[in-house]
Amino acid sequence: MYQTLKAKLFALKENKIFELSVVAVIIISALEIGAKTFQLSDQAYSITSVLDAFITLFFLFELTIRFIADPDKKSFLKKGWNIFDTLVVFVSLIPIDNSEMALLARLVRVFRVLRMVSVVPELRVLINSLLKALPQLGYVILLMFIIFYIYAAIGSFIFHDINPTLWGDIAISMLTLFRIMTFEDWTDIQYETMEVYPFSWIFYLSFIFFTAFAFLNMVIGIVVNVMEEEHQAARAKKEPTLTELQQELKEIKALLSQSNQHK
Amino acid sequence: MYQTLKAKLFALKENKIFELSVVAVIIISALEIGAKTFQLSDQAYSITSVLDAFITLFFLFELTIRFIADPDKKSFLKKGWNIFDTLVVFVSLIPIDNSEMALLARLVRVFRVLRMVSVVPELRVLINSLLKALPQLGYVILLMFIIFYIYAAIGSFIFHDINPTLWGDIAISMLTLFRIMTFEDWTDIQYETMEVYPFSWIFYLSFIFFTAFAFLNMVIGIVVNVMEEEHQAARAKKEPTLTELQQELKEIKALLSQSNQHK
Amino acid sequence: MYQTLKAKLFALKENKIFELSVVAVIIISALEIGAKTFQLSDQAYSITSVLDAFITLFFLFELTIRFIADPDKKSFLKKGWNIFDTLVVFVSLIPIDNSEMALLARLVRVFRVLRMVSVVPELRVLINSLLKALPQLGYVILLMFIIFYIYAAIGSFIFHDINPTLWGDIAISMLTLFRIMTFEDWTDIQYETMEVYPFSWIFYLSFIFFTAFAFLNMVIGIVVNVMEEEHQAARAKKEPTLTELQQELKEIKALLSQSNQHK
Amino acid sequence: MYQTLKAKLFALKENKIFELSVVAVIIISALEIGAKTFQLSDQAYSITSVLDAFITLFFLFELTIRFIADPDKKSFLKKGWNIFDTLVVFVSLIPIDNSEMALLARLVRVFRVLRMVSVVPELRVLINSLLKALPQLGYVILLMFIIFYIYAAIGSFIFHDINPTLWGDIAISMLTLFRIMTFEDWTDIQYETMEVYPFSWIFYLSFIFFTAFAFLNMVIGIVVNVMEEEHQAARAKKEPTLTELQQELKEIKALLSQSNQHK
Repeated sequence: MYQTLKAKLFALKENKIFELSVVAVIIISALEIGAKTFQLSDQAYSITSVLDAFITLFFLFELTIRFIADPDKKSFLKKGWNIFDTLVVFVSLIPIDNSEMALLARLVRVFRVLRMVSVVPELRVLINSLLKALPQLGYVILLMFIIFYIYAAIGSFIFHDINPTLWGDIAISMLTLFRIMTFEDWTDIQYETMEVYPFSWIFYLSFIFFTAFAFLNMVIGIVVNVMEEEHQAARAKKEPTLTELQQELKEIKALLSQSNQHK
Repeated sequence: MYQTLKAKLFALKENKIFELSVVAVIIISALEIGAKTFQLSDQAYSITSVLDAFITLFFLFELTIRFIADPDKKSFLKKGWNIFDTLVVFVSLIPIDNSEMALLARLVRVFRVLRMVSVVPELRVLINSLLKALPQLGYVILLMFIIFYIYAAIGSFIFHDINPTLWGDIAISMLTLFRIMTFEDWTDIQYETMEVYPFSWIFYLSFIFFTAFAFLNMVIGIVVNVMEEEHQAARAKKEPTLTELQQELKEIKALLSQSNQHK
Repeated sequence: MYQTLKAKLFALKENKIFELSVVAVIIISALEIGAKTFQLSDQAYSITSVLDAFITLFFLFELTIRFIADPDKKSFLKKGWNIFDTLVVFVSLIPIDNSEMALLARLVRVFRVLRMVSVVPELRVLINSLLKALPQLGYVILLMFIIFYIYAAIGSFIFHDINPTLWGDIAISMLTLFRIMTFEDWTDIQYETMEVYPFSWIFYLSFIFFTAFAFLNMVIGIVVNVMEEEHQAARAKKEPTLTELQQELKEIKALLSQSNQHK
Repeated sequence: MYQTLKAKLFALKENKIFELSVVAVIIISALEIGAKTFQLSDQAYSITSVLDAFITLFFLFELTIRFIADPDKKSFLKKGWNIFDTLVVFVSLIPIDNSEMALLARLVRVFRVLRMVSVVPELRVLINSLLKALPQLGYVILLMFIIFYIYAAIGSFIFHDINPTLWGDIAISMLTLFRIMTFEDWTDIQYETMEVYPFSWIFYLSFIFFTAFAFLNMVIGIVVNVMEEEHQAARAKKEPTLTELQQELKEIKALLSQSNQHK
C-alpha cells in the first residue's frame, strides 16, 4: 500500500499542473510579502494572516510529497536545495507571538521567494553555474582583498586625524575604499586629504588603477573560462582531433607503400 | 487596371528616390518636433502646423502605396513594423483641438521619428537582433528581479522607520535599490541606516556584489550567444566537419585494404 | 645636384637620431605648453618665447626636409597626417601680437603635442585602427541618437515647466539625458519630476535600459569585429580550409577506385 | 657538514608545514597591522610590540633558510620577489625610536602583507601575468596620456579664470579631467564653465567620448592578447596544422599515381 501511495505521489510530483501550482503559490507568497510593506487596513491584514497559514501548510504538504516520492531518502538532505527548502518550511512553522520576533519572522518569510529558484530548473542551472565560477576566481578575489587591506592600513595610518569618520580604523577605511572604487563622491575625500598632504592624489589614483585592473582581469578570467568550457563541451561530442586525423593519414601511407612493394 | 496600378506602385515603392524622400520627410518631421520644444513666434508656429498636416498626409499616402503594392495583403498587418507604421499614421489623423489633449498629440508625433527604424533596413536588422537576444536573457532578468524583490522586502521591513521616502514600501525600495545599483549617492543612504544598524553595510555590499555578478553574467551570456551565432553562420556555409573528414579517411583505408587483398 | 641633396635629405629623414630629435623637440614643445599654464616669472616667460621660436623653426625645417625627400610630391598633401603637420606648422608661423588672439595662438600650439601621434608609427597605427572601427559602428550610433532625440523631445514636452534649466528645449534635454546616462546625480532629476508626475520613473528607467543595452551591443560589435579581423588575418596566411582538404581526399578516392578497377 | 645543513634546510624549505607556517605568520602580521589602526589599551599595545619583534625575527630566519638552501646563490638577488622579500625584512630590522619616523616604520611593516603574494605561487603567477600584459598596452596608455595632456592644456588656458581650483595649471587640470573620466560630479564643473562659454559642453563630451573609446580599445586589446596566448599554448601542444595535413595528403596522392603508373 505504501508503494502505491509512493507511486501516486511521484506521479503527482511530476505532474505539470502540480508544478505550476507550486510556482503560483510562491508568487502569491511573494505578493503577500510585498503587500505587507504597505500600510494595510485591519481587514487586509487579517487576510494576509490567513494567506500566510495557507502558504505554510501548502509548502509543508509539497515538501512531504517530495520526500515520500524521493526514491533515495537517505541522500534527500544531502542536496543543497532540499536543505534550503526544508529550512524555509520548518522555520515558518515556529509560532511567533511577541512583537520583538515579528521582524525576524517576516524576514524568514522573505526567503520563500528564493524558493522560486529551487523550483524552476532553469534558474537552478543559472545559480549553479554562478557558484561554479566562484572558486576559479578565488585567487583574484584574494588579491583584491590584499590590495584593499594594504591601502586601508596605509589610509588609516596617514589620514586618521584628518577625518576619523572615513579613516578611523582599518575596517572603516576598507568601507571608504569600496566607496572610492564605486567612484561615489571620491573627490570630496581626496580634496580633504590633499589639503594636508598635497601628494595624496597618488594614493587614490594608484588605488583606482590597481582595483580597476584587477577587476578587468577578473572579468576576462570569467570570459576565458566560459569559452574554455564551451570548447570542452564541443570536444566531448567526440569530434576527432587533428592529431587523430594525422594518425589515420600515416596508416594509409603505410598501407600504400606496403602495396607498392608487393608489386 | 488595378494590376497595372499595383505594379506601378510596387515600382514606386522600390524606387530609390521614393525611399530617400520618405527618409527626408521623417527627418523634417523630427526637426519639426525639435523646433516645437523651443519658444516659437506665432508665424513659425503656423508654419509647423502646415508642415504637420503635410507630413501626416505624406505618411498616409506612403502607407497606402505600401499596402496596395503588397502582394500578400492578408499578412500585411501581421508584420510588427507595419502595425507600428499604421498606428503612428492613424493616431496622427485624429483631430485634437482642446488643449488638454494637445500634449498627448505631440507625444504621438514624437514616435514618427521611430519610423526611421522601420524604413532604414540596417536599423531594422539591428533592432531585430536586439529583440532576438532578449528572450535568451529572460532567466537572468528574472533572477535579477528576484534579487531586487528580496532585498527590497528586507529593506522596507528593516529600514522603513529610518527613511520612509527611500524605504517606505516595496515599490519605493526597488527604485532605491536601482539607484544603489547605479552607485548614485548610495553611501548617503548607507551612512543613514548605519547610524541605527551599524552592520547594515552588509546589506548594501552583498546587494552590489550580487547584482554586479548577475549583470556580468548577462553580458557574458550575450557575448557567447553572439559568437555561437557567428559560428553557426560559418557552419551553414557547408564547411565539412572533422568528423566528415575522418569518415572519408576510413573509406580510403577500406578501399586500400581491399586493393591489397586482391593481389 | 638637386638629386644629391634629395638623396642626402632622404638619408637624414630615415636617420634614427633625426627621428629621435624630432620626438625630443615635440616633448620639449609639450613641456613648454605645460609650463605656460603656471604663473611664470618674467625671465622664465622670455625663455619660453625663445623656445617657441626655436620649435617653430625646427618644425618648419623638418617639414621641408620631409617634403623634399618625398619621392612623390604630388600626393604629399593627400596623406591625412601630412596635411595635419603642414597646418600645425604654418598656423604657428602667423605672427600674433594683440592680446585677443593670444589665446587662439596658444591653443594652436597645443596641437603640436598631437604631432607625437603623426611621428611615432605605433601611435599612428593605433589611431588608424580606431578610425577604421568607427564607420562599422555608424548605425548603432545613429540608433542611439534616435533614442536620445525621442526621449529629449518627450522630456522637454512633459517636464518643460518643472525645470527649464534641465528640460527647456530639445538641445538642453539631450545634454541632461547624457548626464543621466553617466548616472551623474540622475536621481535628483528623477525625484524632482516624480513630485509632479509620480510615474516619471518609467521614463528614466526605460531610457537607462535602452542606452545601456545599445551601448553593450556596440561593445560586442567592436569585439566581434576585432576577432573577425584576427580570423581573416590568420586565413590570409594561406592555411588550407577543411573544404580544400575534403577535395584532396575525394581526388585520392577517385584515384584508388580507378586503381582497383584496373586490376 | 655545510652540505648536510644545506640539504636539511632545502628539505625544510620544501616542507608543507613550513610553508603553511610562513603563510600563518604573514596573516598574523596582517592582523597585527590591522589591530594597530584601532585605539589599543597599553597592554594590547605591548603585545603588538612583542609580536612585531617575533615576526621580524621569523622573517629573517625564513629568508636565511631560503638563501642557504638556494642552489644558485649568485642569482638569488636577481629574482624580483627575492629582492622584495629581502628589502621588507631588512628595513624592518632598522630600529626606529623617535616618534617622527614611527609612521614610516608602520608603513614599511604594511608591505609585509604583500609577502603573501611572494609566498603563495598562485598569486605570484597572477601578478606576473598582470605585469606581462602592461607593456603590450604601453602605447594605448601613452595615447591616453596625450589626450589628457592636450585637454588639460586647453582647459587651463580657457577655464583658468573661471575656477583656478579646478583649472589652475596643467597638473591640476589633469586631476580634474581624471575626475571627469570617473563621472564624479562632472556636470557641476560643466555647468560652471557653460555660464561663461555656452559651448564648452563640446569640450567635456568630446573628452568623455575619446577616453571611453580609448579605454574600450584597451580592454579589447587585453582580451585579444589573452586569447592569442591561449591559442599559442594550444599550438605548443603540437597539434598538427591543416597545412601539415594537406602536405601528408599530397604525399599520398604522389604514392598513388606512382602505384597506378607501375601497372
